[in-house]
Amino acid sequence: MAQDVQQLIARAQAQYVRCIDDGDLAEWPDFFTPACVYKITTADNYRRGLPGAMIYAASRGMLVDRVASLRDANIYERHSYRHVLGQPFVLSDDGNEARSETSFMVARIMRDGSTDLFATGRYCDVYVRHADAVDEVKLRERIVVCDSSRIDTLLALPL
Amino acid sequence: MAQDVQQLIARAQAQYVRCIDDGDLAEWPDFFTPACVYKITTADNYRRGLPGAMIYAASRGMLVDRVASLRDANIYERHSYRHVLGQPFVLSDDGNEARSETSFMVARIMRDGSTDLFATGRYCDVYVRHADAVDEVKLRERIVVCDSSRIDTLLALPL
Amino acid sequence: MAQDVQQLIARAQAQYVRCIDDGDLAEWPDFFTPACVYKITTADNYRRGLPGAMIYAASRGMLVDRVASLRDANIYERHSYRHVLGQPFVLSDDGNEARSETSFMVARIMRDGSTDLFATGRYCDVYVRHADAVDEVKLRERIVVCDSSRIDTLLALPL
Repeated sequence: MAQDVQQLIARAQAQYVRCIDDGDLAEWPDFFTPACVYKITTADNYRRGLPGAMIYAASRGMLVDRVASLRDANIYERHSYRHVLGQPFVLSDDGNEARSETSFMVARIMRDGSTDLFATGRYCDVYVRHADAVDEVKLRERIVVCDSSRIDTLLALPL
Repeated sequence: MAQDVQQLIARAQAQYVRCIDDGDLAEWPDFFTPACVYKITTADNYRRGLPGAMIYAASRGMLVDRVASLRDANIYERHSYRHVLGQPFVLSDDGNEARSETSFMVARIMRDGSTDLFATGRYCDVYVRHADAVDEVKLRERIVVCDSSRIDTLLALPL
Repeated sequence: MAQDVQQLIARAQAQYVRCIDDGDLAEWPDFFTPACVYKITTADNYRRGLPGAMIYAASRGMLVDRVASLRDANIYERHSYRHVLGQPFVLSDDGNEARSETSFMVARIMRDGSTDLFATGRYCDVYVRHADAVDEVKLRERIVVCDSSRIDTLLALPL
């Protein structure tokens, strides 16, 4: 990946949050490689290297299942999210994959119109270049590190 | 518009929010072309294709009038906004105009110092290159799609 | 500084907030030149040109002292911040130094997990190119202009 990896990642991030906030959630797994890690954890767990995670998926198939179960439970009609992300900070880039961290704030909007600051934290990502498209990157790993330990993600949209 | 349209738009957005949050509101209409659409609506209305809008203006002149009426009513001394925007996501670009979507969060700061998350949503924009300056883009259309249906914009600053 | 000063600044900002939110606060003074100004003030004071500041430091050494005193008081174990910044808007760039303004929102996460929107405002910055590294910029001046006058920064992390 060339010098513009930061821009490729920034573009991928914008597309990712658009999918969750305004798009079709069924497309969300497409941002990941077939073998991937998606995990939601807390800053406290992450700092101490503890394995505990609120959500853990080890393949794109598991992400597809998760979206299907949200749809069956009719969860994502009941609220929506709004993500605002900072600039991705690229930690390393070996030409094949790049590691980056990106801060996020997520607001949750309930059906009655009430809005609150639902989650803050950072994405710790490993991006790889997509084999079929040189201007695209896919997530091989996304660890969503939430700042607060008080996050109810049991029945929530993905972060 | 060349490959850097994303950066041109990002720059225009930064200037736009600076005008509202920290600058002279009288300059706000200058971000639009003379014939333009500026509309504030809800995600619910927008999704269903309903025409209802909380604010609607069909020309730069109407935006000038709006700013003048805010000034006369002395509204914008009473509170201020802080916008934070995500990366613009460019949906299309035919060389003359580009369509993009950009997430926003807006905090409102009252005169007594209290701060709340006032609005979240996205800008659905059509940008055109400014005739007199190749490195500038102007809004031909901005649909402000608010996530919540509980937004009081009657006497508020523009979004 | 060439045409990409906007990107250099955006990258420096991402690194800056990562240091405060997720990194080692002891490295925070390194974002500044040895002789520098760091000031936290309110929009009200800033607009009227009043000298009053909630925090004022006139050198990198004073920033080092501040970090040390926070550590001694064990303050920054008790809460954490999450910054999300907008695009830096470059006001001027004479080749040696660049002036920019950047909007911010900062959430504060307490040890019990509660999260609130702690501060909003803008950074009014003067960046200079780092003598030893052409792709790096350092802060010669950062005025943190908080929108609200109700900010308790007495014992808080830096903004």
